[in-house]
Amino acid sequence: MAMLLEFSMSPLGKGESVGEHVAGSLDVIDRSGVPYRLNPMGTVLEGEWDEVMNVVRECLERMSQQCDRVTCTMKFDWRRGATGRLTAKVDSVEQLLGRKLKQ
Amino acid sequence: MAMLLEFSMSPLGKGESVGEHVAGSLDVIDRSGVPYRLNPMGTVLEGEWDEVMNVVRECLERMSQQCDRVTCTMKFDWRRGATGRLTAKVDSVEQLLGRKLKQ
Amino acid sequence: MAMLLEFSMSPLGKGESVGEHVAGSLDVIDRSGVPYRLNPMGTVLEGEWDEVMNVVRECLERMSQQCDRVTCTMKFDWRRGATGRLTAKVDSVEQLLGRKLKQ
Amino acid sequence: MAMLLEFSMSPLGKGESVGEHVAGSLDVIDRSGVPYRLNPMGTVLEGEWDEVMNVVRECLERMSQQCDRVTCTMKFDWRRGATGRLTAKVDSVEQLLGRKLKQ
Repeated sequence: MAMLLEFSMSPLGKGESVGEHVAGSLDVIDRSGVPYRLNPMGTVLEGEWDEVMNVVRECLERMSQQCDRVTCTMKFDWRRGATGRLTAKVDSVEQLLGRKLKQ
Repeated sequence: MAMLLEFSMSPLGKGESVGEHVAGSLDVIDRSGVPYRLNPMGTVLEGEWDEVMNVVRECLERMSQQCDRVTCTMKFDWRRGATGRLTAKVDSVEQLLGRKLKQ
Repeated sequence: MAMLLEFSMSPLGKGESVGEHVAGSLDVIDRSGVPYRLNPMGTVLEGEWDEVMNVVRECLERMSQQCDRVTCTMKFDWRRGATGRLTAKVDSVEQLLGRKLKQ
Repeated sequence: MAMLLEFSMSPLGKGESVGEHVAGSLDVIDRSGVPYRLNPMGTVLEGEWDEVMNVVRECLERMSQQCDRVTCTMKFDWRRGATGRLTAKVDSVEQLLGRKLKQ
């Protein structure tokens, strides 16, 4: 069940600036070996259900060591047999439009 | 790690009306034994990470038997030690406002 | 362009408990006259684009009077010619399943 | 009220592959002049409420010319006085971690 999953996790009750806690999540993500892309509003992972969900869970476990409330949005797109979509979806849109877009 | 998790899952490529597939998910949810509330845009579950994520996974497995592409949004709110929030959060807002709201 | 729009808005930097600010939003929503339903993870509005977006904007304006950072998730479902979906979507799922669900 | 807003819009009832319709949205976005970044799961805009919401609305108007049902997820992050966050948020996480991340 390979999928793209975007998620964004942040603590409530740790002030207005949460960059330190977000950096902790990116450390987990980057070390996980699961392919990903970071954007200004979240991180997109590509992998099997267990792979991507374990990354989200580890991020929660790490953040919950220092925070008493954590919120997270997730969105996944599963498509049978599809892989390499971390780059293919954007490429496909650019091809359909016939021009480069800002990434 | 008890949390509230709202999710909404639907197939792409099965036409404009997806009620039959949504009903399949609600069948999974309702039989799971995990406390939930259905609203017009999603279902809110309350439970431990494994409990709520297993429900989402089972919904995906069921939907993927008939559909080749499935998208899903999820949002969770974890708070240390908090339980009974399926009803407590709305009650608390009504108390703060001092009037009943439409549910 | 009548739609269902669910949204959930909260401040960052105002501590772990944000009920007071959420109550302020519900006050805006409840007084707006736009049909809505509150659930434990958000509020679902039904109306034209301008109607529902003006409610969200007023909630942001109110919250930003006391908060320096505000995050919000929104999800809309627009369907040509469809109305009354605040109740019809749940009814339809119950009919398809042939049993009552927890709301 | 300058904000980052990520959104992802797609039609229901137009089959499993919706790239053509997504390309139409990116055409609207790219021509709008509003700063943006495209990622595999959505597009992040930066601008005032009216600027970013008008882009989303134009995408809906365009998509609704060919589609009878459209769903959309949005998430915004407003922070008083903050600008340039389309690049600054990722830069800040990289600085905190002390290493480059995949974008």
